[in-house]
Amino acid sequence: MNQKNLKIGIDLLGGETPPETLLSNVIEWLRSKKGEASFLLFATEKLCASYEKLQEPHLSFCPVKELIRLDENPLTAIRKKKNSSLAIGIRLLKENKLHGFITSGNTGALVAAAKIELPMKNVERPALLALLPTKKDLVALIDVGANIAITANELKEFAFLGSGFQKFRGISLPRIGLLNIGSEAIKGTKALQEAHKMLEMCAKDKGFVFVGNIEANELFEGAVDVLVTEGFAGNVLLKTAEGFSSFVLDLLKTHPSFSKLQKELSYAEYGGAFLLGVNGLIIKCHSYSSAQAFLSAIQMAIEWSPKNLPCFLKNYLAAK
Amino acid sequence: MNQKNLKIGIDLLGGETPPETLLSNVIEWLRSKKGEASFLLFATEKLCASYEKLQEPHLSFCPVKELIRLDENPLTAIRKKKNSSLAIGIRLLKENKLHGFITSGNTGALVAAAKIELPMKNVERPALLALLPTKKDLVALIDVGANIAITANELKEFAFLGSGFQKFRGISLPRIGLLNIGSEAIKGTKALQEAHKMLEMCAKDKGFVFVGNIEANELFEGAVDVLVTEGFAGNVLLKTAEGFSSFVLDLLKTHPSFSKLQKELSYAEYGGAFLLGVNGLIIKCHSYSSAQAFLSAIQMAIEWSPKNLPCFLKNYLAAK
Repeated sequence: MNQKNLKIGIDLLGGETPPETLLSNVIEWLRSKKGEASFLLFATEKLCASYEKLQEPHLSFCPVKELIRLDENPLTAIRKKKNSSLAIGIRLLKENKLHGFITSGNTGALVAAAKIELPMKNVERPALLALLPTKKDLVALIDVGANIAITANELKEFAFLGSGFQKFRGISLPRIGLLNIGSEAIKGTKALQEAHKMLEMCAKDKGFVFVGNIEANELFEGAVDVLVTEGFAGNVLLKTAEGFSSFVLDLLKTHPSFSKLQKELSYAEYGGAFLLGVNGLIIKCHSYSSAQAFLSAIQMAIEWSPKNLPCFLKNYLAAK
Repeated sequence: MNQKNLKIGIDLLGGETPPETLLSNVIEWLRSKKGEASFLLFATEKLCASYEKLQEPHLSFCPVKELIRLDENPLTAIRKKKNSSLAIGIRLLKENKLHGFITSGNTGALVAAAKIELPMKNVERPALLALLPTKKDLVALIDVGANIAITANELKEFAFLGSGFQKFRGISLPRIGLLNIGSEAIKGTKALQEAHKMLEMCAKDKGFVFVGNIEANELFEGAVDVLVTEGFAGNVLLKTAEGFSSFVLDLLKTHPSFSKLQKELSYAEYGGAFLLGVNGLIIKCHSYSSAQAFLSAIQMAIEWSPKNLPCFLKNYLAAK
């Protein structure tokens, strides 16, 4: 298909940012995209009317009467609100009148509607895949929030979707990892332990390499091409990276010196975690802790051992 | 107690870094700590023997015969290996012969042993608390990996432990948040929804402010003093921050220009996540997406809409 005939739907409704703010900030950029694609903008009737005068053949508007809010029950919302931007957008995708659809609306409603209207064979649960930068190539993290309580079989399905995605991007033999909190096969939930076995068995047939459990810190080393996870942890990972990224950019403004920034960022300096709820000062370091991390943990112990934290906690918990 | 009489146990066994590497890297620093505390080092018999000549009254060694490996079943390990460094360390804490204990060993075994030997009233599940830097004060993240499948009541307990910890640090009215994947009270697992209600109800009695659900990206803004989570997501959050930190330091070496680094780090540029497993190109942005994030998502749609990813995935999933 000629790129000029491509039509992309942009849902300005249903997220937290007001649609007028989004539109006023993207409109000039969209006007400059003439010849690359055409766009259908979903907005309130009022907002659509205010852009009526805009004479750009590649930009059109779809006034929407029904809004699915972020706090709505997804299934009820998609059953009742057939004229919401989400429902219309997905219908137009199905009718091939749109070739792409972008939304920041209710995730649950989006996934449920897409699953019903645009089902794909061999897929029980559609999943969200995000690409993240690493020290090497981009890694595909799947799922980042569509599914929060899942089975081993569903994790396997995510691995297949992620593997297919990276093959499509040109990686012939993707390396697949399972997000876990330790490298040992016995770590994590039952679903993770079972998925570990299943992925070992089917890797060859599906044309990928299963590298086993991966901890979140290894991700940015570029240890895998696809990292498989249920959506809660995947969402936490993605948003931590985003938040930390903004934190670092902030630090850079105030710590122009590399060594100071290094000190600020060096997590090894934090050493370990306190084990709370026991009658004693116990500091747990990561199993892969460096000597530097140990030093920081020992420094923590020197500082905290004269204080009586367990006694304070005991009294605090007992009150009321 | 006089600081000089404080004794800290350091378990060099059971982690992934060889004990001799750890010891050779920390020994000079420990020697310099004379007068601040004394240290009991848990190591293999061989390693202890090789340091026999060391004449430092504040440094002593505990040769250990039994090792709890990282891949061992925690409960079996602590029942059978009474002479492991973990078991001895916790016993000495109980007998008040140690005033702090540091280990990078098997988390499950550590938590189980500490719970049995050093129980604290009103605590069902001891939890690991890590302090992380933010744009404001340090935030206490609890739990970072001791408990991976938990109830609402246990989340409430973690909130109490975290609140007590921050009060001990001097924050009189800690702000407590619940780690979730959206700000709405209906988000997340059943346990999270229920914990949300419980924390709203008991905040006043326990002397903290419950600010509701917090997404991982908000953490580094300093939105809360305590972030409560089950251990899997908490562990992922902590390790993502660590891994990302190392990634950034690496980038700084190769991108000395601030604007280039900004571009590399700017997650907004990644725009959105692909919804895979449906017959259509759908890109989902965060609900809080900025106009810049929308632009990136639209750019993604322009690039990806001419390709036929769904068709490729369908064929890949159907094969074999």
